[in-house]
Amino acid sequence: MTTSQPAGSDGDVGLLSPVSASPLVAALTGDRAVLAAILAVEAGWAAVLEKHDLAPAGSAAIVAHAADASRYDPAGIAVRAQGGGNPVIPLLADLRAQVKALDTGSAGAPGVGALRAVHTSLTSQDVLDTALMLLARNTVSALLADVKGTTAALARLAEQHAETLCVGRSLTQHSLPFTFGLKAAQWFHGLAAAARRLEVLQLPVQTGGAAGTLAAGTVLTAGSATDPFALSDDLASQLGLAATPAPWHTNRLAVTSLGDSLAGVVDAFGKIASDVLFLSRPEVAEVAEPRAPGRGVSSAMPQKQNPVLSVLVRSAALQAPALAAQLHLAAATFNDERPDGAWHSEWPALRQLLALALGAAGHLRELAEGLQVFPEGMRRNLDLSGPLLLSEGVTAAVAPLLSAEGSGSDGKQQLQTVVDRTLQAPAVEQGDTYRRLLREAVPADRLSDVKLDELLNPASYLGQAAGISRRILAAFPDFAPTPTEKDGNGDSRG
Amino acid sequence: MTTSQPAGSDGDVGLLSPVSASPLVAALTGDRAVLAAILAVEAGWAAVLEKHDLAPAGSAAIVAHAADASRYDPAGIAVRAQGGGNPVIPLLADLRAQVKALDTGSAGAPGVGALRAVHTSLTSQDVLDTALMLLARNTVSALLADVKGTTAALARLAEQHAETLCVGRSLTQHSLPFTFGLKAAQWFHGLAAAARRLEVLQLPVQTGGAAGTLAAGTVLTAGSATDPFALSDDLASQLGLAATPAPWHTNRLAVTSLGDSLAGVVDAFGKIASDVLFLSRPEVAEVAEPRAPGRGVSSAMPQKQNPVLSVLVRSAALQAPALAAQLHLAAATFNDERPDGAWHSEWPALRQLLALALGAAGHLRELAEGLQVFPEGMRRNLDLSGPLLLSEGVTAAVAPLLSAEGSGSDGKQQLQTVVDRTLQAPAVEQGDTYRRLLREAVPADRLSDVKLDELLNPASYLGQAAGISRRILAAFPDFAPTPTEKDGNGDSRG
Amino acid sequence: MTTSQPAGSDGDVGLLSPVSASPLVAALTGDRAVLAAILAVEAGWAAVLEKHDLAPAGSAAIVAHAADASRYDPAGIAVRAQGGGNPVIPLLADLRAQVKALDTGSAGAPGVGALRAVHTSLTSQDVLDTALMLLARNTVSALLADVKGTTAALARLAEQHAETLCVGRSLTQHSLPFTFGLKAAQWFHGLAAAARRLEVLQLPVQTGGAAGTLAAGTVLTAGSATDPFALSDDLASQLGLAATPAPWHTNRLAVTSLGDSLAGVVDAFGKIASDVLFLSRPEVAEVAEPRAPGRGVSSAMPQKQNPVLSVLVRSAALQAPALAAQLHLAAATFNDERPDGAWHSEWPALRQLLALALGAAGHLRELAEGLQVFPEGMRRNLDLSGPLLLSEGVTAAVAPLLSAEGSGSDGKQQLQTVVDRTLQAPAVEQGDTYRRLLREAVPADRLSDVKLDELLNPASYLGQAAGISRRILAAFPDFAPTPTEKDGNGDSRG
Amino acid sequence: MTTSQPAGSDGDVGLLSPVSASPLVAALTGDRAVLAAILAVEAGWAAVLEKHDLAPAGSAAIVAHAADASRYDPAGIAVRAQGGGNPVIPLLADLRAQVKALDTGSAGAPGVGALRAVHTSLTSQDVLDTALMLLARNTVSALLADVKGTTAALARLAEQHAETLCVGRSLTQHSLPFTFGLKAAQWFHGLAAAARRLEVLQLPVQTGGAAGTLAAGTVLTAGSATDPFALSDDLASQLGLAATPAPWHTNRLAVTSLGDSLAGVVDAFGKIASDVLFLSRPEVAEVAEPRAPGRGVSSAMPQKQNPVLSVLVRSAALQAPALAAQLHLAAATFNDERPDGAWHSEWPALRQLLALALGAAGHLRELAEGLQVFPEGMRRNLDLSGPLLLSEGVTAAVAPLLSAEGSGSDGKQQLQTVVDRTLQAPAVEQGDTYRRLLREAVPADRLSDVKLDELLNPASYLGQAAGISRRILAAFPDFAPTPTEKDGNGDSRG
Repeated sequence: MTTSQPAGSDGDVGLLSPVSASPLVAALTGDRAVLAAILAVEAGWAAVLEKHDLAPAGSAAIVAHAADASRYDPAGIAVRAQGGGNPVIPLLADLRAQVKALDTGSAGAPGVGALRAVHTSLTSQDVLDTALMLLARNTVSALLADVKGTTAALARLAEQHAETLCVGRSLTQHSLPFTFGLKAAQWFHGLAAAARRLEVLQLPVQTGGAAGTLAAGTVLTAGSATDPFALSDDLASQLGLAATPAPWHTNRLAVTSLGDSLAGVVDAFGKIASDVLFLSRPEVAEVAEPRAPGRGVSSAMPQKQNPVLSVLVRSAALQAPALAAQLHLAAATFNDERPDGAWHSEWPALRQLLALALGAAGHLRELAEGLQVFPEGMRRNLDLSGPLLLSEGVTAAVAPLLSAEGSGSDGKQQLQTVVDRTLQAPAVEQGDTYRRLLREAVPADRLSDVKLDELLNPASYLGQAAGISRRILAAFPDFAPTPTEKDGNGDSRG
Repeated sequence: MTTSQPAGSDGDVGLLSPVSASPLVAALTGDRAVLAAILAVEAGWAAVLEKHDLAPAGSAAIVAHAADASRYDPAGIAVRAQGGGNPVIPLLADLRAQVKALDTGSAGAPGVGALRAVHTSLTSQDVLDTALMLLARNTVSALLADVKGTTAALARLAEQHAETLCVGRSLTQHSLPFTFGLKAAQWFHGLAAAARRLEVLQLPVQTGGAAGTLAAGTVLTAGSATDPFALSDDLASQLGLAATPAPWHTNRLAVTSLGDSLAGVVDAFGKIASDVLFLSRPEVAEVAEPRAPGRGVSSAMPQKQNPVLSVLVRSAALQAPALAAQLHLAAATFNDERPDGAWHSEWPALRQLLALALGAAGHLRELAEGLQVFPEGMRRNLDLSGPLLLSEGVTAAVAPLLSAEGSGSDGKQQLQTVVDRTLQAPAVEQGDTYRRLLREAVPADRLSDVKLDELLNPASYLGQAAGISRRILAAFPDFAPTPTEKDGNGDSRG
Repeated sequence: MTTSQPAGSDGDVGLLSPVSASPLVAALTGDRAVLAAILAVEAGWAAVLEKHDLAPAGSAAIVAHAADASRYDPAGIAVRAQGGGNPVIPLLADLRAQVKALDTGSAGAPGVGALRAVHTSLTSQDVLDTALMLLARNTVSALLADVKGTTAALARLAEQHAETLCVGRSLTQHSLPFTFGLKAAQWFHGLAAAARRLEVLQLPVQTGGAAGTLAAGTVLTAGSATDPFALSDDLASQLGLAATPAPWHTNRLAVTSLGDSLAGVVDAFGKIASDVLFLSRPEVAEVAEPRAPGRGVSSAMPQKQNPVLSVLVRSAALQAPALAAQLHLAAATFNDERPDGAWHSEWPALRQLLALALGAAGHLRELAEGLQVFPEGMRRNLDLSGPLLLSEGVTAAVAPLLSAEGSGSDGKQQLQTVVDRTLQAPAVEQGDTYRRLLREAVPADRLSDVKLDELLNPASYLGQAAGISRRILAAFPDFAPTPTEKDGNGDSRG
Repeated sequence: MTTSQPAGSDGDVGLLSPVSASPLVAALTGDRAVLAAILAVEAGWAAVLEKHDLAPAGSAAIVAHAADASRYDPAGIAVRAQGGGNPVIPLLADLRAQVKALDTGSAGAPGVGALRAVHTSLTSQDVLDTALMLLARNTVSALLADVKGTTAALARLAEQHAETLCVGRSLTQHSLPFTFGLKAAQWFHGLAAAARRLEVLQLPVQTGGAAGTLAAGTVLTAGSATDPFALSDDLASQLGLAATPAPWHTNRLAVTSLGDSLAGVVDAFGKIASDVLFLSRPEVAEVAEPRAPGRGVSSAMPQKQNPVLSVLVRSAALQAPALAAQLHLAAATFNDERPDGAWHSEWPALRQLLALALGAAGHLRELAEGLQVFPEGMRRNLDLSGPLLLSEGVTAAVAPLLSAEGSGSDGKQQLQTVVDRTLQAPAVEQGDTYRRLLREAVPADRLSDVKLDELLNPASYLGQAAGISRRILAAFPDFAPTPTEKDGNGDSRG
């Protein structure tokens, strides 16, 4: 590498955002992708115009040829964008120069007049809004692929570990017996529900013209067989975006909904990462991240193996909420027919949110697909709390046996006393103590030893853990492939 | 008023949030409403249990009687809520005491044992999550009523002013001719689209029990004809909430979606308020807020009339984004089966967002229903920019007339020169200068005087302003009543 | 409690914010405190005017008498505040009525004309800005008292546990040996540094008049011996606030700095709470929260003891950043000489931030003063990682012994191999394996057994843990009482 | 430009953030600057080690030579940073390779062993924290230069327009007469006060080692004449940063204070931009942005001139609050001795805040230095409200003349009636009506015509506008050069 760097290399290539530093993220959300999306909109528009005889025959092909992002200099355009406040203006100047240069005609003949197909009747907000929707569509598509990889892996974990006992935790403390299968199913649940919302999102095209009245488009189509609404719908088809009943220059629900949905997905990522980070601590050791060469290394400590996938995912989850809020703030202050700064404040937030979400999705998929699960660690931690963990169920089952009238309220009081007395015993003796005090409290003819032992077995107090998991997976069939679809045989579910 | 205030009077009654200081907001979102919602959940649950013979006959009626919010002391419960970290715990203690006191039986007979119907198999998160959904449902319902009052008024403005000329503004500067009807239609558009999203939102019930496994509910229903899922669905019906396939203790999409949708609606409020604030400035004077006694007064300046409805709405719009983000942050850090602070951070944000949205909705409705519109002010401002405002359309129409080959590119250059020369004239002369230079540039046989005058008439360059408005209103028929529905006669549309 | 509640009882009394539901928080930040602060400003101003003969003799006493907050109805004033958009306007009307009623003169003589002392030359922003600064001053003062109680307790922990071994953790994994004393010292450090910033904050008075020109004050003082700047300085003295060179109606640095400093303190709270929440988990068991009757109870699980102090503190820490940002957003959009909504958006955020900070401070103090510390748990967790935790230090010490030229680089490679081979042994054997492989790698004449054992003792690799703690405590003497003050007697809170 | 782009060109070069797309911003905050800062820290550390004989003689020079940022590939390092979660780890590998390659010795002799000077005893957080402080220092320094250019320009405006009448505005409506000089002085005030806070900020060095105990540094310095604290202080001197009493790995006040101070400065930018955006609207026309070739152009409208400097500054002001809050959120969740994601979430927010602030500072300086001021437009708008604008002052002066006892309260009522009657006249007649009604109300022997006319002259009711301006400028002498420095010659930017 030499010292003669082009200006662009001074930009942000991800050094300070490892979660989104992958080549895929750069390819889909970097400034070259932005340029490419802007150019795709202009090329799509040229095709629409030519199709309706509103631009010369042959012009769309020339514009499409000129609209190769590699012909343009993102960094230079960025600097020039300061003049008009948006990147479309300088890019258009360069695009027009390219079109002019390409529109030479053959054998000395004049060109077709392809310039007439460039940007005609559009305004820069039309192009930038549409381009960012296009960028979003491509990014969301890649994101959903990773999410579905993750949910497939989580569904497998839910099924494999449907009977793997662990402990449920609430406000950091042990609450009740739980299964790792249900934990994975709930991770799946949060992620699939959020992703489905993203999946159904409409990303609309924008073609309203300078003031959102379609005035220039009306002049353009006057006397033709079409109208500006039809052109807009055609552009939507051309680009794979949604048609829209009206320009949305000043109503940013499409943008905020996109941001909200992305944040929703990243929230679900964050919940999983938070849990993995705790469960993979040395003191807990219920799961571990998949190992890979060079992953999780430390600059100072040779023995250390950091759960870096979860760390990076969590770093994204801490950032997404404020980015989505930035989009709402812009929407809430979007004055006039085009605002005086709010629109400009949308762009970096939207792009960064897309990049974080996509980057985190990749890390999370790798995590989910390779997660190491340690059932014996789960059991060890479950046993830390001993049978007192079952006191809710014991109370529910035993209290009625102790109460003459069956209301259970006297019994409840008696059993709370049992719990209180048990808690005074040393931790290691609490299991035996609890059983002994229960045995003393309830005559054997009302509660057999066998029944008592069953009540004190955590596996007996799992409620609907398995049923809930099944209901969750069934509610999102497209996120939880059947075994055959998944890997060609069925044994992955154990 | 005396000095012997109960502690509760030291709370927040809205002194620092005038936008949400209405009695309606207090009634629907205040702490008494929170108490009432919690109690409604417990009473609903008792009814469900009794219906399925899981609680004694007669118990539901006793619980319902005890669940009158006026029996409880919100401030005292709030102080005691510090102990367990949530208000359900102390309220339950008080509720049980009330039930016990009411469950006396008649004529010395024992009570029915109604305590068995209270909270059985639930956890405090079940109750609080469900209660906040109930509170939200009631608030959203009132909010949508106000929103529909607003959209009806905006639809009327859109129709009345379909041909009222004004100027479109972009980055603070004049862009193109516009109509006030389209402005109102776009306000309508933003608001109706956001409100529709809120309207279709599912607000779910929560009954997962201590760890979200329905363990206690499973014990409770063992041997009965029902199961915990059915109980949950019944509670949903009872309360008018949505059923849910699984507990959502740790997946907060229901909460964040509610927050997002509320923020989306408030964004639309904010956009309208921003515009009204500008348009009602003395220098602009295109609209004015409705007057009412005591509204808009100043403590120092006797002549001043402040647009206080818009000011208050805007103050809400500046706050909503961060509140919605707070909910996402909670969701993104929701660790374990119940988290260690994130859940607690949701409550104030959700309530405040509901209160702001509802308060702002009322002010905005009053604003929209009484907005004063000054077409002559709009025309005066439109004329400030003179015919140069039409240069986009003039260029599009005239350039081809100037170019031999019809490409228009030579003509464009020529017409830009005309614009540049016009801009060198004093502002008051620019209208005449522009017409004169155009006349000189284009031979009369290509452009008649009549046609030239038409090109220089702003009303000729409105594009699809009317058509866009109609499409918008047609897309949201339930937000834009027909004249008959609106006011019994049809003349409101002028 | 009856059903005939005044409207005010529907407000927010803290039911949804247990962290700030204490009577102290209500007394210092509730709406009655807001009223009292506004009234104190008006009374202070009357005193200033009378002192300078700008109001009739005796008027200040009458205004002071009238300015008893218990005379006013916060909820009613809140509702009326919707009219003008701020609470000063309706409160002033009520204050004037009270003053008029009190200013009766004696024995039928006319009153002194005390109305002339009320609000003369001020604008409502003057009064509300000053009142909120006053409210903040009182709240900050109480907050700092709690913070100093906390730092005193942390300083004691730092000293008591200067040699208590635990493990340092980085990205969730064990990094190096650590001491609990240094952990407490770093908690102290973060908190004391943030609190000091809050302590030195200037909270200014505001008296600029309707447009911030002191115009009315200039008329008022014309011909007198004083001027409006002097009146402002006098009011500052009167109220214990800072004088200011100029009105700051539109420059909100005083407000944002207050918010930033509060957020900084709450950040430090949050860091401590995060650590305690982890360290008090059953799997970790290095510390526990102090127990108290009714604290940490669960509505469903009789055996559970939640670390509710830390949970509540954490809930505040998750909320403070957005509240401070709300103040910046207001400042950044503060248009004109008084803005059209930004100012109004400040009030709830500032109050809520004060309430959260004060509430959390109380909980944290209780936590710090009663924290239970379990050195044996710390040692157990430290030992989980075995001697590999010392490999950084071992490598640094041993590598040079293995390298001919002393550069250590050959040695480093050799020792990394030792680590890698150790990691292949079962976890329980890694300690022995590591020692054995090291022994094999280094001739005994270069590294004696005694020296090797010392290298493998975690206590030998604590670096400057003790020195750093001492430096920290020494840097904040006012936050860390000397031993005599601290534990020579029992009144350490002094 | 060719299609064979290096990966880095897909990054963010500013296309979507025109406010910060300048080469200066890229040079100071881009990823190459990050690399350079990291390398500067490693080189500085090598120098410190060599100085204390803890690294071989000659090693610092070799490391310094290797630490040329142009030798490294930011984009490649970014991708590799995903492995360990931070960029220091892969960069260190590359740096060590460079050092090894350079440390060849002369004439076949062995090298000096310069590797021993690289990163010895440091951890990656030490290097990255210090590097970001260095980056911040350089950026803040450039930022303050631009701010002082701006404040100098504003001070000139304040002096030039000390008597230029305009109207004060409150809640969008006219409040009282004002001067443009005071407006400029208050802009100055907000900016200078915020910048001063930034200027005094301490940006500390970080050298705590893997767990923040200085353990490796203690081993390193054992037996030497120095200690790890002294090394840290030396590094601070070397890099121009502040020394620190203790590692601050987990106490992020240095980071949040930096963020808060930057946000404070950007708030002040935003206030000015908001005002300029309004004042330069065509309907208001009191100021205009400086023109420059290519600035403010539109892609659709040839006549349009957008105030793009203010628009870009405002877009930054809308973004800064959330970025500063992101830093607080990280600080508030900074668990353990190094956290599991919070630290990583700091980096992009801090960098983006620096970039936005610096970018906006440049635009604002250009705006302030070239602002066009139109006193006649100010006067025209002032006159819109007519003499009623003076009613506060008229009332204060005239009411006592109307009241027998001098209390003024009867007179106030009478004069409010005059105002109310005036408001019923058509707007254009209100001036005359107000004067006439006043004349009728007050006998000429109490108020002469001359005195009445003076009361109705806006220039008579400016209060302390000039004095306040002078006090403000005097309070920040280093931000307001003396007249001689300012305009005695032309090199005021010096």
